[in-house]
Amino acid sequence: MDSLDDLNTRLIRFARERDWEQFHSPKNLSMALAGEVGELLEHFQWLTEAQSRDLTPEKKEQVALELADCLIYLIRLAERLGVDPIAAAYRKIAINEGRYPVERVRGDARRAGEYGD
Amino acid sequence: MDSLDDLNTRLIRFARERDWEQFHSPKNLSMALAGEVGELLEHFQWLTEAQSRDLTPEKKEQVALELADCLIYLIRLAERLGVDPIAAAYRKIAINEGRYPVERVRGDARRAGEYGD
Amino acid sequence: MDSLDDLNTRLIRFARERDWEQFHSPKNLSMALAGEVGELLEHFQWLTEAQSRDLTPEKKEQVALELADCLIYLIRLAERLGVDPIAAAYRKIAINEGRYPVERVRGDARRAGEYGD
Amino acid sequence: MDSLDDLNTRLIRFARERDWEQFHSPKNLSMALAGEVGELLEHFQWLTEAQSRDLTPEKKEQVALELADCLIYLIRLAERLGVDPIAAAYRKIAINEGRYPVERVRGDARRAGEYGD
Repeated sequence: MDSLDDLNTRLIRFARERDWEQFHSPKNLSMALAGEVGELLEHFQWLTEAQSRDLTPEKKEQVALELADCLIYLIRLAERLGVDPIAAAYRKIAINEGRYPVERVRGDARRAGEYGD
Repeated sequence: MDSLDDLNTRLIRFARERDWEQFHSPKNLSMALAGEVGELLEHFQWLTEAQSRDLTPEKKEQVALELADCLIYLIRLAERLGVDPIAAAYRKIAINEGRYPVERVRGDARRAGEYGD
Repeated sequence: MDSLDDLNTRLIRFARERDWEQFHSPKNLSMALAGEVGELLEHFQWLTEAQSRDLTPEKKEQVALELADCLIYLIRLAERLGVDPIAAAYRKIAINEGRYPVERVRGDARRAGEYGD
Repeated sequence: MDSLDDLNTRLIRFARERDWEQFHSPKNLSMALAGEVGELLEHFQWLTEAQSRDLTPEKKEQVALELADCLIYLIRLAERLGVDPIAAAYRKIAINEGRYPVERVRGDARRAGEYGD
């Protein structure tokens, strides 16, 4: 994967050329991100977990483009807020290492991937 | 912003140490991403657009950590699918440049930031 | 508004006629509900709050049909879980009356409508 | 299930007593609905479909209260827009009966429950 900085710069230019920064409030961008995530879910909602791991190339490209939309709005939102999402991700991982020490949560479905919260 | 590759590697290690890859099907990860985006929305739902542009430092850090959760699950999902989200984002931008030429959509609220769809 | 019971009965029949109950696990239905809510958000994401209060009749009907999709999956989910969503709503309101007494939260934007949580 | 009309009336009173109608624009309420749906997803994201069909009584009540929050915001949104969500649901079902005739989609996972779209 490439650097997010170049993508961020490209997206700022895309918005400014179209005079769209006026619509890109954090509130609006959070909604746009949620809308795209909804489209992503629609690809998986009737699949089993096993099917979701084994997409056809056509379906995988469709999903990749939805994921791209999510990343695009996430980067726009971070830029408008003035936060660095990768630095924030490392801060969050450090918090979660304290919350979920390896020896305590190993293979625990209830915690299965709780980077978040 | 730093490279996504290092973050991706860090997240794979975090999941493997806890034996959580078994739960990280694309279906499940898309749900986890949507759950985190829901938490992000809750920060903005009763704010005006102007207020959402002018968060206190404490609030901004809370939002940054929610954004981090979104990015983390997005990266996990891309890794499990075997897609490069940044490359996909550039493919999507190229598609949108064709759809929304500058001269046709300038300042048009109806299109305001339709990278997606 | 009519009773939800008749709608529920109609939706059960719709699913059974098509042999779709097999796909209607609570997990899957929660995803379908989230997908529809994402489509609802897309109608409002670039509108101001004032514009969202003043839709054209055509737009209002489009939004009404998205809202219908949300209600349909919500009812399907409640039915599959064996819960009565209206009774649950009254339980939740009682909880929130304790949490947000009128004299303490009147006109408070931070709480603005926190039926939920 | 009881009538939605009484619930609607109860929710209007709840909002007016707290002077919260000012915050209840359709835009804001759609976000609040999405936030609650995100909380609902979090209950199911690491469960298998089978586990989601077989919740403990405690877990079922937690899910019922999340579902209640979703219904509450859905009703508030419908009320603010001036649309009847049950009537809209029947209009949508009629549309879907045309789209997905029984003989063509029986047991078809790709369509599995596409009331929506």
